[in-house]
Amino acid sequence: MPNAKHKRMPPPEHLVADAVAAALEEDLGLAGDITSNAIFDTQTSGTAIIKAREAGVLAGALFADEAFCQTDLACEITWHKQDGDQLAIGDHIAEITGPVRAILTAERTALNFLGRLTGIATLTARYAEKIKHTSAVIVDTRKTTPGLRFAEKYAVRVGGGSNHRFRLDDAVLIKDNHIAFAGGIKAAISKARENTGHMIKLEVEVDTLEQLNKALAEKVDAVLLDNMSLEDLRRAVKTIDGRLIAEASGGVTLDTVADIAATGVDIISVGALTHSAPCLDLGLDIDIPTA
Amino acid sequence: MPNAKHKRMPPPEHLVADAVAAALEEDLGLAGDITSNAIFDTQTSGTAIIKAREAGVLAGALFADEAFCQTDLACEITWHKQDGDQLAIGDHIAEITGPVRAILTAERTALNFLGRLTGIATLTARYAEKIKHTSAVIVDTRKTTPGLRFAEKYAVRVGGGSNHRFRLDDAVLIKDNHIAFAGGIKAAISKARENTGHMIKLEVEVDTLEQLNKALAEKVDAVLLDNMSLEDLRRAVKTIDGRLIAEASGGVTLDTVADIAATGVDIISVGALTHSAPCLDLGLDIDIPTA
Amino acid sequence: MPNAKHKRMPPPEHLVADAVAAALEEDLGLAGDITSNAIFDTQTSGTAIIKAREAGVLAGALFADEAFCQTDLACEITWHKQDGDQLAIGDHIAEITGPVRAILTAERTALNFLGRLTGIATLTARYAEKIKHTSAVIVDTRKTTPGLRFAEKYAVRVGGGSNHRFRLDDAVLIKDNHIAFAGGIKAAISKARENTGHMIKLEVEVDTLEQLNKALAEKVDAVLLDNMSLEDLRRAVKTIDGRLIAEASGGVTLDTVADIAATGVDIISVGALTHSAPCLDLGLDIDIPTA
Amino acid sequence: MPNAKHKRMPPPEHLVADAVAAALEEDLGLAGDITSNAIFDTQTSGTAIIKAREAGVLAGALFADEAFCQTDLACEITWHKQDGDQLAIGDHIAEITGPVRAILTAERTALNFLGRLTGIATLTARYAEKIKHTSAVIVDTRKTTPGLRFAEKYAVRVGGGSNHRFRLDDAVLIKDNHIAFAGGIKAAISKARENTGHMIKLEVEVDTLEQLNKALAEKVDAVLLDNMSLEDLRRAVKTIDGRLIAEASGGVTLDTVADIAATGVDIISVGALTHSAPCLDLGLDIDIPTA
Amino acid sequence: MPNAKHKRMPPPEHLVADAVAAALEEDLGLAGDITSNAIFDTQTSGTAIIKAREAGVLAGALFADEAFCQTDLACEITWHKQDGDQLAIGDHIAEITGPVRAILTAERTALNFLGRLTGIATLTARYAEKIKHTSAVIVDTRKTTPGLRFAEKYAVRVGGGSNHRFRLDDAVLIKDNHIAFAGGIKAAISKARENTGHMIKLEVEVDTLEQLNKALAEKVDAVLLDNMSLEDLRRAVKTIDGRLIAEASGGVTLDTVADIAATGVDIISVGALTHSAPCLDLGLDIDIPTA
Amino acid sequence: MPNAKHKRMPPPEHLVADAVAAALEEDLGLAGDITSNAIFDTQTSGTAIIKAREAGVLAGALFADEAFCQTDLACEITWHKQDGDQLAIGDHIAEITGPVRAILTAERTALNFLGRLTGIATLTARYAEKIKHTSAVIVDTRKTTPGLRFAEKYAVRVGGGSNHRFRLDDAVLIKDNHIAFAGGIKAAISKARENTGHMIKLEVEVDTLEQLNKALAEKVDAVLLDNMSLEDLRRAVKTIDGRLIAEASGGVTLDTVADIAATGVDIISVGALTHSAPCLDLGLDIDIPTA
Repeated sequence: MPNAKHKRMPPPEHLVADAVAAALEEDLGLAGDITSNAIFDTQTSGTAIIKAREAGVLAGALFADEAFCQTDLACEITWHKQDGDQLAIGDHIAEITGPVRAILTAERTALNFLGRLTGIATLTARYAEKIKHTSAVIVDTRKTTPGLRFAEKYAVRVGGGSNHRFRLDDAVLIKDNHIAFAGGIKAAISKARENTGHMIKLEVEVDTLEQLNKALAEKVDAVLLDNMSLEDLRRAVKTIDGRLIAEASGGVTLDTVADIAATGVDIISVGALTHSAPCLDLGLDIDIPTA
Repeated sequence: MPNAKHKRMPPPEHLVADAVAAALEEDLGLAGDITSNAIFDTQTSGTAIIKAREAGVLAGALFADEAFCQTDLACEITWHKQDGDQLAIGDHIAEITGPVRAILTAERTALNFLGRLTGIATLTARYAEKIKHTSAVIVDTRKTTPGLRFAEKYAVRVGGGSNHRFRLDDAVLIKDNHIAFAGGIKAAISKARENTGHMIKLEVEVDTLEQLNKALAEKVDAVLLDNMSLEDLRRAVKTIDGRLIAEASGGVTLDTVADIAATGVDIISVGALTHSAPCLDLGLDIDIPTA
Repeated sequence: MPNAKHKRMPPPEHLVADAVAAALEEDLGLAGDITSNAIFDTQTSGTAIIKAREAGVLAGALFADEAFCQTDLACEITWHKQDGDQLAIGDHIAEITGPVRAILTAERTALNFLGRLTGIATLTARYAEKIKHTSAVIVDTRKTTPGLRFAEKYAVRVGGGSNHRFRLDDAVLIKDNHIAFAGGIKAAISKARENTGHMIKLEVEVDTLEQLNKALAEKVDAVLLDNMSLEDLRRAVKTIDGRLIAEASGGVTLDTVADIAATGVDIISVGALTHSAPCLDLGLDIDIPTA
Repeated sequence: MPNAKHKRMPPPEHLVADAVAAALEEDLGLAGDITSNAIFDTQTSGTAIIKAREAGVLAGALFADEAFCQTDLACEITWHKQDGDQLAIGDHIAEITGPVRAILTAERTALNFLGRLTGIATLTARYAEKIKHTSAVIVDTRKTTPGLRFAEKYAVRVGGGSNHRFRLDDAVLIKDNHIAFAGGIKAAISKARENTGHMIKLEVEVDTLEQLNKALAEKVDAVLLDNMSLEDLRRAVKTIDGRLIAEASGGVTLDTVADIAATGVDIISVGALTHSAPCLDLGLDIDIPTA
Repeated sequence: MPNAKHKRMPPPEHLVADAVAAALEEDLGLAGDITSNAIFDTQTSGTAIIKAREAGVLAGALFADEAFCQTDLACEITWHKQDGDQLAIGDHIAEITGPVRAILTAERTALNFLGRLTGIATLTARYAEKIKHTSAVIVDTRKTTPGLRFAEKYAVRVGGGSNHRFRLDDAVLIKDNHIAFAGGIKAAISKARENTGHMIKLEVEVDTLEQLNKALAEKVDAVLLDNMSLEDLRRAVKTIDGRLIAEASGGVTLDTVADIAATGVDIISVGALTHSAPCLDLGLDIDIPTA
Repeated sequence: MPNAKHKRMPPPEHLVADAVAAALEEDLGLAGDITSNAIFDTQTSGTAIIKAREAGVLAGALFADEAFCQTDLACEITWHKQDGDQLAIGDHIAEITGPVRAILTAERTALNFLGRLTGIATLTARYAEKIKHTSAVIVDTRKTTPGLRFAEKYAVRVGGGSNHRFRLDDAVLIKDNHIAFAGGIKAAISKARENTGHMIKLEVEVDTLEQLNKALAEKVDAVLLDNMSLEDLRRAVKTIDGRLIAEASGGVTLDTVADIAATGVDIISVGALTHSAPCLDLGLDIDIPTA
């Protein structure tokens, strides 16, 4: 159940606050929302509802909260859905009461975050759903939006996926280019191990079963089985025999992921979770007070 | 021809430099690329090729340049394709020569920008292609990635589209919520005009032909014909008769855009250009010096 | 009445907070207000009054609020005058109660903002007063203090003026140098129109009636009638005949502005509003608690 | 000769670079100079001349340099006048050769700094000229533009003045409010001395000769003789007899400064130098290459 | 009593807040405290005690406050000891009640500041104790940790020391290299005096009694008697005879400081206070709620 | 040989540049080095030598380079010693040629970084030397100077040590407080594993051999044997039998480290490396050009 996970592992709050502040700054320019400011005075209050126009899995409530509250602390937001909850078309996600001016000023920033992160959680959940009968786990990559990695990796967690490396400095991942240049898997692994600390995991990309055997001999923590056929994946899993983590990548789509998971790999990484998930369509409708 | 446009209207260079610096900082953490640093010494040089794995329209060369050069000024990049050029599968886009360590460290940041912006330019070009026999123009919206609006609106220009508002402060756009709350189109427009400067354009969203007539009476600069049927769009265009700019929005897809353009509207805005364009698949392959 | 305008169109709050924080940081250095800290303990409270030592139009209350409250949240400020209100010599503008240490620490920063913005609003109001019997409007320019454009343009609004462009990216203004280099008005306008979006207004500087006719032929949104004689301005207004906005600039002083307005121009731009308005003299006197 | 002074004591270069970068960022927004970019391609070069339209003393060349070079490193600037030089109407101050687009984009930012700082240096020089036959020195105050104190105090040095405190933390200045609240001059000085380091100077504001005697008894470094009559200033100078620095402030204008200096005070502080100096009128004219 | 001093002269609060925010950002990365977040839910509260594991003088409570409260505003901290208080082994310094997750997340940041600043205050107090029977004062230098000068100089004040220059711009200190290059003490002092304001103190390093006499002739504010023998210090003090401030530096240790003070110098500067004070050992133990 | 390691794993360059820029900004204030600027003109050049006044292991050359070059690009630095090299008293470390003004302005910032980082590398090397006959490795902790973790962990690598976690988000370390609160080792490990990705290592602190057995049963990656007696460490190592990484911490000094290493543990962590290493004494002497 994705909900449980995301509640335990939220992103650092200052990163949320800073990202939202930067987005508002980008949108407000030097004079702010001249349309709403010109039409409404500061006293006019109202209520708006954020609604789902597509089905999906909600992610990013914290960001929308920030957008409204940074614009005006008088905004009060009631969330009918929580991060990780399923959304059906027409669901009321949240209700915002406050100055009309602030609600309309923050609307686009709030929805830009919410739609994007919900899109990622939704796509992740669709992948996770396809393989829920297996023990495999869907993970993301570093193919994230510049500046929003912390948020997008959080959305993956909300959607029921897990995270690969956060950065270049928290794990070693030796890829084909590293291997070719270093003169082989053994040399590359040896150099990497010699120069990194004891709390750093080491994964190696292998494209063939022959390479896999070399990696196994070096006792790495994980192997990235890249673009292998289902048959090769099965053989690789059998060869590995639980001695290290087996990760499959390449050619993973909603159509192929179940078959890949069925090979017995532990981890399936999907770049599209963060680089190509479409925004989930959300709308904000303002209620007019009757009086 | 998109190429001509983008060359004239590039984004401010400091925004490019800052966005790339932030992305590298996000990826490098406190210790940098521990994999490449462990395996390669600082003297090892090499050459890498960025290749297209999908067809599209290139955008974002400046960002990739920054990523490699900020990592190491010794990197030299030769671009075989320019922003706005068509890409075919397998095309060599750029060749980077420099320290192997730097090339591999900057690779992901460079491709994250290049893939995203090329994805946006490519989708924009597909829309533009559908309506090239008409006088209509494809424009973007404010549904952009937080922090990257300047870059994504540039990619739209490269793809042959044009830009709607950059921010909330550079034009007035009165939407349905503004109108309802202000007590009608006339009142909303009147307040907006009274409070904004002479260099600010004023556009009003209208959902019906009746609303359109009210807007016309107020002599606004543009109307946003939202979610109208093709029949209504045609009537609206006829009613407007060139007196102001007619913009269509809502329900615009690659399948419907040509019919919408055929109604005679001047502008068609498409949120998906920036909120849901899939990343274009690009690869970086490093060459091994033979010696 | 300036008051009504400024209330509707305040500057974005985060810009106010950031500008004040930067000013305090500049003044406090590494050790803060060593004079007040050495003399007063943290418990000593008091009340201070901000008084007008010159007549004028108040602007910048928000900035002074920020200065005291950022220094110590225990400061409470009561404003007897609001932005846009007339000030007579000796008027009590605001009363601050709180720790003496904080009041004295923030005093200079608060007054530096308040004096400068009030100076701008006051000068703007003097210009506006001179032409209040006409339909012309006083506007500012981009000749603002680096870093404080948002604040100074707000002060112009408070004083009863309106704003020209906020930045280089929100409107096209083709000046004499552009025209000369582009090979004439027609070519310059044509290139500008081709490369900018539909929400961007286009203004052209014309120095002669001949140039004016060329601009009219291109259907621009506004013309800047630069340094024209009153006679030429009158002819220009007649020629334009309401087809576009007529802006006069150059040689505008408090002595000449009424005559310029009488020519029938719509807009009169005055760089001095922001680049040369003298600071309005304000003082802060601390009350000594009797006990 | 002001020129010699300013060359020795320029502002820190990173502050110049940062201030100019912030000003350009403020002016360029998300899309840059859309007028110049639309009209000129990146290849078009030209030359522009910065000319004086008023007489004065130049200050701020470094800032203008930064504005052009940050916009495009291809800009080459030749200065015909240096900071501290006298300007006559029509003088050619600098010649910039480079891309026309960059010259026009940076023009306003360069002139905003140059005009403001030259205005301050010019006003300072006018004050200094009035008292050059005495040993008194003109100094500034902390009544500076928020964010630009370093620049404005530099302009005062260029104009032939000297600097009072840079910040609240580098010297003790006990004012009337401090004294009243602390229960007298002696108590205030005693607490200040007890809590500040040995490299901190201590100045006390005195409004009467009686207060002056109390300050002299405490052996402070300087006294601020505030709003005293010329007669009282003369008596104060005589009483002080060179034992500490005598600073006059209050009611200082170009008309009164010579008389004040003639009383024998060492220092005359003038807030108007930085809070109300009018911008010096400068123009930039672009040359059209003949070919 | 150090306590009284530090209360009067705390560091600017925004510097405390910014330093703590930067430290938390450094420690939290993109995903935060994954250990505590994984193990505890957001509802689990608890209490933790900060205890002294060594004797010393507390400094930095404000920084620890910030660390816990920035992490979660629900943290409530009760301080049993104040900055400047003596700590014995086992003393309970503070008690924090709040979410267990927040307490453990902020623990290291809080202790890193508290341990370092307490270490500095403790070392300063040890020096001050050695010379308390004299009128000499212990002062710090600019040999501080990059980025933490404001905090470390505060800790010196808490420990009973005083501060030398805060920065290069708030006092003149002419050292041996300056003198040698300028062609002698007299020339160096003359140039310095000519180019600096009236609120700037001027100190000169002298290595011999001959140099001292030259400095005395120039009427500087202070002399830095560098690396002199006790005998020379005594002679220097006698020669100076109270006309200016005498500062000793070089070779100052806990073993030598009393003898140096006994020579009659006014000031003894010790770089080790800030560059080599060992961290004071502090621990945080969390209490387990019984239920 | 430490030298080889540090060359492979330098800190990210932008972090070096930013840290040095912040340190210079802190030291220069608003007016810069008023002493050097007053005494020397911009044309005076000279050469200075950085010398070792204590023996040690050099670390931080990059930071000193930055300090001089950021101050003036005309500075040229020749390094006679490299990071990782042994220093003897009197060794010439580097020679800087350039404007005297810049050399003296940057001196303190350069030496503050160099002395601190060299102090850390030197202390690390002393620990490493003590255990070089064993297979144990010295590692650092998160007890680093706020803001300088990247630099201090680099200095540890230069000194021949290795790095523990960089941040809270790159590895799980379950400490005694986590265990107590979570209801035992098994529960804590289970929750941690469930909520963290496959590239995250998991270490558990154990205080007794009984706890060790529980940790072994959960197959963690490493155990932190905290404050165990040598006898218990030996038993622990025997029990572990190479199945996971054994880290000793607590009570590690230069006197005890060899005995601890002799127990067969893999890793020995020492907080003092970064929180209490004394600065290494370095001096800068300027040469006077003979002419």
